[in-house]
Amino acid sequence: MSSSPVRIAVAGALGRMGKAVAATLEGRADATTVARFDRPGAEDEGLVALESALAGAQAIIDFTIPEASVALAETIAAAGGGIALIIGSTGFNAEQDARLAKAAESVTIVRSGNFSLGVNMLMGLVRQAATALPASDWDIEVFEAHHKRKIDAPSGTALMLGQAAAEGRGVVLSEVEDRARDGVTGARTEGAIGFSVVRGGGIIGEHSVIFAGESESLTISHSAIDRGLFARGAVAAAVWAQGKAPGIYDMQQVLGFRGI
Amino acid sequence: MSSSPVRIAVAGALGRMGKAVAATLEGRADATTVARFDRPGAEDEGLVALESALAGAQAIIDFTIPEASVALAETIAAAGGGIALIIGSTGFNAEQDARLAKAAESVTIVRSGNFSLGVNMLMGLVRQAATALPASDWDIEVFEAHHKRKIDAPSGTALMLGQAAAEGRGVVLSEVEDRARDGVTGARTEGAIGFSVVRGGGIIGEHSVIFAGESESLTISHSAIDRGLFARGAVAAAVWAQGKAPGIYDMQQVLGFRGI
Amino acid sequence: MSSSPVRIAVAGALGRMGKAVAATLEGRADATTVARFDRPGAEDEGLVALESALAGAQAIIDFTIPEASVALAETIAAAGGGIALIIGSTGFNAEQDARLAKAAESVTIVRSGNFSLGVNMLMGLVRQAATALPASDWDIEVFEAHHKRKIDAPSGTALMLGQAAAEGRGVVLSEVEDRARDGVTGARTEGAIGFSVVRGGGIIGEHSVIFAGESESLTISHSAIDRGLFARGAVAAAVWAQGKAPGIYDMQQVLGFRGI
Amino acid sequence: MSSSPVRIAVAGALGRMGKAVAATLEGRADATTVARFDRPGAEDEGLVALESALAGAQAIIDFTIPEASVALAETIAAAGGGIALIIGSTGFNAEQDARLAKAAESVTIVRSGNFSLGVNMLMGLVRQAATALPASDWDIEVFEAHHKRKIDAPSGTALMLGQAAAEGRGVVLSEVEDRARDGVTGARTEGAIGFSVVRGGGIIGEHSVIFAGESESLTISHSAIDRGLFARGAVAAAVWAQGKAPGIYDMQQVLGFRGI
Repeated sequence: MSSSPVRIAVAGALGRMGKAVAATLEGRADATTVARFDRPGAEDEGLVALESALAGAQAIIDFTIPEASVALAETIAAAGGGIALIIGSTGFNAEQDARLAKAAESVTIVRSGNFSLGVNMLMGLVRQAATALPASDWDIEVFEAHHKRKIDAPSGTALMLGQAAAEGRGVVLSEVEDRARDGVTGARTEGAIGFSVVRGGGIIGEHSVIFAGESESLTISHSAIDRGLFARGAVAAAVWAQGKAPGIYDMQQVLGFRGI
Repeated sequence: MSSSPVRIAVAGALGRMGKAVAATLEGRADATTVARFDRPGAEDEGLVALESALAGAQAIIDFTIPEASVALAETIAAAGGGIALIIGSTGFNAEQDARLAKAAESVTIVRSGNFSLGVNMLMGLVRQAATALPASDWDIEVFEAHHKRKIDAPSGTALMLGQAAAEGRGVVLSEVEDRARDGVTGARTEGAIGFSVVRGGGIIGEHSVIFAGESESLTISHSAIDRGLFARGAVAAAVWAQGKAPGIYDMQQVLGFRGI
Repeated sequence: MSSSPVRIAVAGALGRMGKAVAATLEGRADATTVARFDRPGAEDEGLVALESALAGAQAIIDFTIPEASVALAETIAAAGGGIALIIGSTGFNAEQDARLAKAAESVTIVRSGNFSLGVNMLMGLVRQAATALPASDWDIEVFEAHHKRKIDAPSGTALMLGQAAAEGRGVVLSEVEDRARDGVTGARTEGAIGFSVVRGGGIIGEHSVIFAGESESLTISHSAIDRGLFARGAVAAAVWAQGKAPGIYDMQQVLGFRGI
Repeated sequence: MSSSPVRIAVAGALGRMGKAVAATLEGRADATTVARFDRPGAEDEGLVALESALAGAQAIIDFTIPEASVALAETIAAAGGGIALIIGSTGFNAEQDARLAKAAESVTIVRSGNFSLGVNMLMGLVRQAATALPASDWDIEVFEAHHKRKIDAPSGTALMLGQAAAEGRGVVLSEVEDRARDGVTGARTEGAIGFSVVRGGGIIGEHSVIFAGESESLTISHSAIDRGLFARGAVAAAVWAQGKAPGIYDMQQVLGFRGI
């Protein structure tokens, strides 16, 4: 961590998370906002154009949509890197993943479906429980609930939790996931990892992983109380990323749960 | 209620619910088991053939599958009625519904997706909350969890709860239900009634109806502790049905929450 | 509702709820902030002294402590009334209750342990379920969770829910409440209404009323997502109170769930 | 494990858990019931006197009350040991603990407040989360719910979970526990471990450990679906104990989570 505050530009500054990031940065000693920007033409209310944001920033925090995040990574790469990119967007397709990996050859990227400490702790506990509780006796289900404005399902965090469970079991998530139960489904497949989704009102974010046995169940849950949670984690990632080599990192690495 | 115990035949006697019904009937004063039967060829361990079961029974309690329940209703109708049929099977299609309605011209049928007192109370509370809390401010979601052997989704009870919510709002469930969120769904539709499903282990039955507002949420939940719950309600329905005119009744009527 | 916005003074303006009330009033058409005040000597950052706040206000919204709320009511009474007082403070003792009742001879007071629409809906559903589900078969428990800064337990809202349950059963809460289970308690007393309390972190407010039967349980829960919830209800009460006769009213009356 | 089934005597055979243990033993290959006994004078319905039970047993499974369990340990010790004692009773006082330790000089004892695999997994996860999440930012609360017949609070399992959390934090539970919040409690003490208790109906057993932060909370929960759960774990302990040296063991050791 440098002694002067890390200079951060906020992408998607008109969105909920963009505002939360800017609010979190107020009054911090280790990081400060140098620019806020959003889609072209939004240069009012203190926002700047992308080029201007890039000029003075050491890191960009970006909670937008996959296409915008990938384009941003490519712009930074084309400019020769040197600005860390913290990506909270979710729902990337394979082509977007590939473009991001290419950009990461010269850009330091921290990408996470969820920047909260609690969620990352949850992932560690889930991986461990999934390792210890055999599929023959314990069924794994991932449940999540979010506000009515969320446009994808399951949430990126739910998929990360499913991934952690699959890793614990030594299986490939895409081969065991059960994502849309409706109608005559037949009995549950042994070893499946199920997903269920609630959407409504202003729910900030709830995630549960259920290990259901015949006579007992074990549930590990996370509940977000306010969005400051994700913003704080993203800022911590931006500070952590200073001086790191190009590549794609995740919050498990930022928090020291796994080596880099 | 007659002074001598109501004579009950148990269909699907080899299934979980068939066994629970038989267990509940032990030691009751108002009802007694006269026969237990299951699929043809299962006449061992105290089971009898269908014809024999029909001979001495005043009511049949049937937790099986739609086709078996409809066939049973038609058999009773063909024999001239006189035996009440208590149906706990779920997942009927339109053609099966029609055949059941035809049989009910001469058979007294009590049909419910859930025979518990608590669930029927829940339905009443949900209808009332859905009436009071407008769709513009409150999103309704129905969540349910059951054991890994359940073969349909959402559960019959979840659909009944969605129906109660739709009635409270004065809308048609099939026009507002949102049953399988997966992928890029877009933002939630105002007025939608969502469903989500967990399957695992030995979970007996959990149902929640969530009213999610922007700044608060209200949730009404039911949890089954043991299956005796459903069996007791079915027996109560069998006793109640004695002397009632042919037709299809539900538990709201048995419990006196709605007129017959 | 008058056509010009109701002029509201905010008591306890330096507290969490005072800030939330001021935030809620920004941009509303039906009500506006005319003054914010707090303890004597706090006249900085835009705050005014009490006398000044009283001068221009039609209503005061007060989330402070019982002694401050009672003193405020007495000050308004001494000045001849004419300003509605909306009280969200909790934990009044009998002497404070009596002084408030005296002041209410000339002051219009709306007092509630919880100003949210959802909580008031919850109270109505609890009263109804408690009426329908007999004490011989169903045990009632009230659970609540709040942030670590809360200084009293159970919460005022939890006690209101216990009161609603007691009313539904036709019993007196103080005669049946079971508030601190610890050690060898013996088996639960039939008809008791139990309370349990969690305190931690930033939990905004969770309340559940559990009806536990032998084979099933029914739970009605409320969860606060943000504090705007309570502030909005308090402002609605301030608007509603204009032109009402002196006396003490509650949110059930403001929302029209019970006559005035 | 010996090749012939371990011969087990069931203490408290007329109680709920005694019956569950006997039911679990039916049809197992690795263990069998040789005697069931209860208080003196209960020698009917297949029960025997204590002396007779001791004669043929290799292990006794005892879910009764502390005084009875201690007396049983002392009786076995006086007879020279050789019978493993599996104790599920809870609520021992210091004097009873001391007598049990004395008896364990010649008797192999497995003692646990909870014999379930899931609960013991829960304890491991709680210890780990308590180690990682600092008391300055995360408040720990233990919640439990049980049926109306339970006579002590908090449950033995809740206290074990509190103990696991205290160990994770490197503190002594008795110095930080907060067991009965009622009235004006003041703000929560940093580092406290709180307990809350629900009692009602037939709830088999729910336990949650909540880690509450300012902007998020993490909860790890266990729910018992049927009592077979505890009985199975106790039988596993009885089989495991064969050939072990005298001493007091716990389920973490039986399950191999910690060395012996």
